[in-house]
Amino acid sequence: MGFVDEYNMSMLTDLYELTMCASYFEHKKLGQATFDLFIRRLPPNRSYFLFAGLEQVLLFLEKMRFTEEHIKYLKSLGFKDDFLDYLRLFRFSGDVWAIPEGTVVFPNEPLIRVTAPIIEAQLIETFLLNTINLQTTIATKAARVVYAARGRPVIEFGLRREHGTDAGMKVARASYIAGCSGTSNVLAGMVYGMPVFGTMAHSFVMFFSNELESFRAFAKTFPDKSTLLIDTFDNIAGALNAIKVAKELERQGFKLRGVRIDSGDLVAISREVRRLLNENGLDYVQIFASGDLDEYRIDELLNKGAKIDAFGVGTKMGTSADRPYVDIIYKLCEKADDKGEFVPIMKLSEGKATLPGRKQVYRFTDEGGNFVKDVIALEGEKVGGEPLLVKVMEKGRVIYNLPSLEDIRKRALDNVARLPDKYKRLQKAAKYPVRLSPKLRRLIKELSEKLRETEGAVAGSS
Amino acid sequence: MGFVDEYNMSMLTDLYELTMCASYFEHKKLGQATFDLFIRRLPPNRSYFLFAGLEQVLLFLEKMRFTEEHIKYLKSLGFKDDFLDYLRLFRFSGDVWAIPEGTVVFPNEPLIRVTAPIIEAQLIETFLLNTINLQTTIATKAARVVYAARGRPVIEFGLRREHGTDAGMKVARASYIAGCSGTSNVLAGMVYGMPVFGTMAHSFVMFFSNELESFRAFAKTFPDKSTLLIDTFDNIAGALNAIKVAKELERQGFKLRGVRIDSGDLVAISREVRRLLNENGLDYVQIFASGDLDEYRIDELLNKGAKIDAFGVGTKMGTSADRPYVDIIYKLCEKADDKGEFVPIMKLSEGKATLPGRKQVYRFTDEGGNFVKDVIALEGEKVGGEPLLVKVMEKGRVIYNLPSLEDIRKRALDNVARLPDKYKRLQKAAKYPVRLSPKLRRLIKELSEKLRETEGAVAGSS
Repeated sequence: MGFVDEYNMSMLTDLYELTMCASYFEHKKLGQATFDLFIRRLPPNRSYFLFAGLEQVLLFLEKMRFTEEHIKYLKSLGFKDDFLDYLRLFRFSGDVWAIPEGTVVFPNEPLIRVTAPIIEAQLIETFLLNTINLQTTIATKAARVVYAARGRPVIEFGLRREHGTDAGMKVARASYIAGCSGTSNVLAGMVYGMPVFGTMAHSFVMFFSNELESFRAFAKTFPDKSTLLIDTFDNIAGALNAIKVAKELERQGFKLRGVRIDSGDLVAISREVRRLLNENGLDYVQIFASGDLDEYRIDELLNKGAKIDAFGVGTKMGTSADRPYVDIIYKLCEKADDKGEFVPIMKLSEGKATLPGRKQVYRFTDEGGNFVKDVIALEGEKVGGEPLLVKVMEKGRVIYNLPSLEDIRKRALDNVARLPDKYKRLQKAAKYPVRLSPKLRRLIKELSEKLRETEGAVAGSS
Repeated sequence: MGFVDEYNMSMLTDLYELTMCASYFEHKKLGQATFDLFIRRLPPNRSYFLFAGLEQVLLFLEKMRFTEEHIKYLKSLGFKDDFLDYLRLFRFSGDVWAIPEGTVVFPNEPLIRVTAPIIEAQLIETFLLNTINLQTTIATKAARVVYAARGRPVIEFGLRREHGTDAGMKVARASYIAGCSGTSNVLAGMVYGMPVFGTMAHSFVMFFSNELESFRAFAKTFPDKSTLLIDTFDNIAGALNAIKVAKELERQGFKLRGVRIDSGDLVAISREVRRLLNENGLDYVQIFASGDLDEYRIDELLNKGAKIDAFGVGTKMGTSADRPYVDIIYKLCEKADDKGEFVPIMKLSEGKATLPGRKQVYRFTDEGGNFVKDVIALEGEKVGGEPLLVKVMEKGRVIYNLPSLEDIRKRALDNVARLPDKYKRLQKAAKYPVRLSPKLRRLIKELSEKLRETEGAVAGSS
């Protein structure tokens, strides 16, 4: 649940969804259709995706309505009255299958499968893509950062550079799902119940007469949970001031929680600061590092022997800076014919072919529970493995027990743990095998031949 | 004004803003301070920024409140009652100077300058950065795309891959400011009054028995404004079908608006489609291109002689994919001493030094009105040129006539036009000169010497 989810987002859509639907309506094309939401390919430096964002999709589908304000605006755009009357009564009435949030997934696997009257299935497209794209992009990036940190806590710190208010919330949520230990975002803490963390800024140090005074002031306010930022002037001088304050706290029966380094050579500085802390009997004081971090940088720091206990990761994770999107699409895969029988459909463009028919994804594991391969099959086809898509919505009502954020996070940690290391390397990871089932391959062959015969026609197997 | 601006976003902040303020409060540090919001450096492949997002900042500052729900949550985090009582009565009461939206700006120039009691000035930091970062990043990217299109319309098409709902709105707004002709985002059209555009998707074509039938259906619904997507099966066959429909429309007294190409070799296809259209007397039918476009690709297409009349640009502009953020920061530059006199402050870290004191930015133009150079000076210093920062808020009230979106867009187009071409090249642009005034340079020298003498101390000139 999130604060913006309270909104009716029916109009946050591309105009073409509405123009297509107006035309469907005019031509009485009201039959059922099935769409798959999936990611077309792996971006460079990604070897899997961590699926997130389903909860917001389901809340959207239940709440989607067109108000009189919306109708008035659409009329001003030239939409006709009978279609607007249809929109006034609009309720999403479809069935939805989806892979649970926190599942490791791969290209071409249907993540959400929607079966509904064509107008309903089409009108929801933009919001579904917007929501799943962001959270899955971020959860995937954050899972890599958490993996690079090798068990050390990672705090999501990127609110100031994330893309707006809704992204601030969804990034905090998706990062937490991926294994981050919390966020700096107070509203996310309040709304999602996740842990929040905060230290201090350089301005705080500079607002006092000197650094030591600022440290003492902060420690007085938060004697049992202060992390002192030591790099405003000089990291080593800052560390010595922090040690003074830590000793003063000890005399009052408190413990300094940590020091934060935000600039400079983090390897050398962290090692020297660790030595100074330990020399002064402050082994318990944590070294917290931040400043332009991502999975590549964290991996490098740890490889070089940095003595860092926890990481604050901001902009590069919160915007997924090296790849701020995934190639997520929503494609028609079957439609009902005039008799109401479902007919599989596929698109045959070069490099953009789609998988026809109503499908299920099966995951195969070894005796240790590790992921071995996936098979995309036609629904009902017996191929073995564990089916990943579950029914989450029936006739427009959520019939799925929405898991708590903690449970989604547990699932994600378990899923990533069960994905063998060779598929998780930060660079040049092995390619996880995703196969197509025999029946699906046969159907594709049939439809391809048919399409090639009747170029310009839509392939249907009936 | 936007739909999410209605929200009270006081809690969308980093926890450290609140912990620092709790400590200021406890230590009765309630004096005034001035902060500059600015961008530290130019990212690769950017030579200027287009400033956007001020309106949302001012609305936020006027609305910022802490509700009982917020207070209850903050109490659960351990904040003390007297500070929470202070927050209950919180109103932003400061003065704000800012550069108008739609202005071309450069690194180190104060974009927003806030003078307020330290707690107020600190608590607003995160939201200001979040809002200005997103809109300025996108407006800057979009200005480049519009420039690359050489006068051809660019439509913002990225809602499905933008980062959440708020980004969907703010990206549409910022892209329009930068000169895009409109958006696909219906809600942005409704809320901001900007033009909306839409064509059709592949699923529409595939839902009918064949492409021609789908084109006829769409043209029947929108006889005077259809743009037909011709690449579902084959661009040339699709163009021939579109020509049939265009001719049918002509017989009914209508004109086909355009065809859209979304894949394939856009240079060759657009040239061939243009030829086919013209051969059939359809010179007026526009060719609209989309599919993975950005400024580099558009420039390349036009250099190679593509016959494209308008561009739909999505993901790469809507996420500013090659650089999804700017290095935007908010730094203390002066504080009031015990007597209430303002004392300039600077930070002296390597590569992260800040400019002390209360500043103004002056822009110099040549006789043709073209931008020649900027000078960052101390407030009140006479250096010539036109001052860019204007007072927008006094004692917490907006005293600035918020310009309409159209006026902001006009300012942006005028500003970008007045920036000489050498500073606008898509790659390897010349560096626009931004100088520091004599007094500012003298102050920096004084404070640097003082800081070096008393390392660990904050530099103040009094």
